[in-house]
Amino acid sequence: MHVLITGAAGMIGRKLTDRLVIDRALGDHIIEKLTLIDIVQPTRPAGFSDHVKTRAADLAAPGVAAKALEERPDVIFHLAGVVSGEAETDLEKGYHVNLDGTRALLEAIRAVGDGYKPKAIFTSSIAVFGAPFPHAIPDEFHLTPLTSYGTQKAMSELMLSDYTRRGILDGVGIRLPTICVRPGKPNKAASGFFSSIIREPLAGQEAVLPVADTVRHTHASPRSAVGFLLHAAELTREQLGPRINLSMPGVCCTVAEQIDSLTRIAGSKVAARIRREPDALVVRIVSGWPERFEAKRAAALGFTAEATFDDIVRVHIDDELGGKIAN
Amino acid sequence: MHVLITGAAGMIGRKLTDRLVIDRALGDHIIEKLTLIDIVQPTRPAGFSDHVKTRAADLAAPGVAAKALEERPDVIFHLAGVVSGEAETDLEKGYHVNLDGTRALLEAIRAVGDGYKPKAIFTSSIAVFGAPFPHAIPDEFHLTPLTSYGTQKAMSELMLSDYTRRGILDGVGIRLPTICVRPGKPNKAASGFFSSIIREPLAGQEAVLPVADTVRHTHASPRSAVGFLLHAAELTREQLGPRINLSMPGVCCTVAEQIDSLTRIAGSKVAARIRREPDALVVRIVSGWPERFEAKRAAALGFTAEATFDDIVRVHIDDELGGKIAN
Repeated sequence: MHVLITGAAGMIGRKLTDRLVIDRALGDHIIEKLTLIDIVQPTRPAGFSDHVKTRAADLAAPGVAAKALEERPDVIFHLAGVVSGEAETDLEKGYHVNLDGTRALLEAIRAVGDGYKPKAIFTSSIAVFGAPFPHAIPDEFHLTPLTSYGTQKAMSELMLSDYTRRGILDGVGIRLPTICVRPGKPNKAASGFFSSIIREPLAGQEAVLPVADTVRHTHASPRSAVGFLLHAAELTREQLGPRINLSMPGVCCTVAEQIDSLTRIAGSKVAARIRREPDALVVRIVSGWPERFEAKRAAALGFTAEATFDDIVRVHIDDELGGKIAN
Repeated sequence: MHVLITGAAGMIGRKLTDRLVIDRALGDHIIEKLTLIDIVQPTRPAGFSDHVKTRAADLAAPGVAAKALEERPDVIFHLAGVVSGEAETDLEKGYHVNLDGTRALLEAIRAVGDGYKPKAIFTSSIAVFGAPFPHAIPDEFHLTPLTSYGTQKAMSELMLSDYTRRGILDGVGIRLPTICVRPGKPNKAASGFFSSIIREPLAGQEAVLPVADTVRHTHASPRSAVGFLLHAAELTREQLGPRINLSMPGVCCTVAEQIDSLTRIAGSKVAARIRREPDALVVRIVSGWPERFEAKRAAALGFTAEATFDDIVRVHIDDELGGKIAN
């Protein structure tokens, strides 16, 4: 089996690559070849070098998607995209990468023809939803994004669904909740603080909380995000039916509950490293975001996330900190 | 006031133009200038010739949208598009006209800058919805189109909403129910038979009914469609709020009830001109279409359609047949 990952140099892309290299298989299929592309050169994973191609390229640029499909990957994880903060400040770049990139990939798949019909797993986002919301967002709730990022993800979902319906590919859109705790440095996502307030204190650093601690949101760990993508790759067209874009499960909690988890696991000295400093732009963006999902279809299809935010903190300590906390 | 109409040579475009020429005003504003563009040369309306520009051009082609905005129209009715049947059989043309055309217009508006912020009324469609449906589709129901046409309309709605949110224009998307009775020749819309079974018998000709007469659908007359567009042009941003795409009201009835209306108004000899000849493709497309809408927001905002299908038949006889029926 040949697997292509777009956005392979991003956080989820790297974790997915690592997992595929360890598993050497996707479901029952041995992975023989990996193609990794991103706007920056993806790192060549150790222990898989004979079968890996990496490329730094803009998927939306002419010919790039066609070249990525030259060896007809069986499964495509389409993760490439710019994050919410950047898509909001740079309108052209957001539409170029998030919409045109997806469209270029879909069109390149169609252009192959000759019975080629790959499985394509697309990372969408709960940012496709926009306030006001019911208590919990049902699977049938309409998409009224309040950011350009959410708009581009929703447009891509629609196109993925149409191309799937037409038999051009086997698509599935995975609406990720906010991924927490993101490792590494903060990115330009407006949701970044949900991770910072856990990650920085655990690393002995101060973190800034730009919103009130009553803010409620839904989270899943990076480990769960990779799990969603791998599970999605295993689903059949029959299981998915015509509605291929799915809201994923997650842990629904307030910022205060996140901080409680941190305190329980790492102590109050660590939690005291969070400094409250409201940021009007982040407050405004986050106020339009969903809080809670029903995610009934995802549950019925077997997608699972952590049960508590404590679990999410522990996954971070295990996967990123080697089990150690800076006290 | 300067009004631009894209798709001005289409059925709704011509009726809207006629109405604007008669009214010579939009709300409280005198219309001083009309710009009419379409892929075929729009007809120059009589009695308004000094102030009309007509142009045959593809809105999605480079420079066309920018040229259409040269004189900064205050209000834009964006009706240009290919219909559902054609968008389904010609994937590239559908995305080019229905998605790229809309995007080109939005981008050209953004490129003007300098405080230019026109009102833009976009004709979307109830084809943005796809089965299975609840008994009546609420305003918050998700968009899962089952045609490429519906996909392109939904993508355009999302982009219109995003550009409106960003303050680039004042957009409103009007999801038209099936327009019935369409005058003139059949077009390539899969919904064409809803009109044919009324129009052709009233003109003394045979009509083909390709679906079962239990098929339920929602209709509004061409006169109502023009009324929706004019009413939408009058709504303020404050009235609309962030959710600018609205499902319009209409008459919900079965094909059998349509035929009953025809029989009541024109007699059973006329209604006998309908020949039943099932068409699998049309049956399949129509089975994925919505039947009934709540359209609560549209009602609250003052949009109105006919009360009964009898009214719809009478509008056709009055507006298209000079009040006369071929017995």
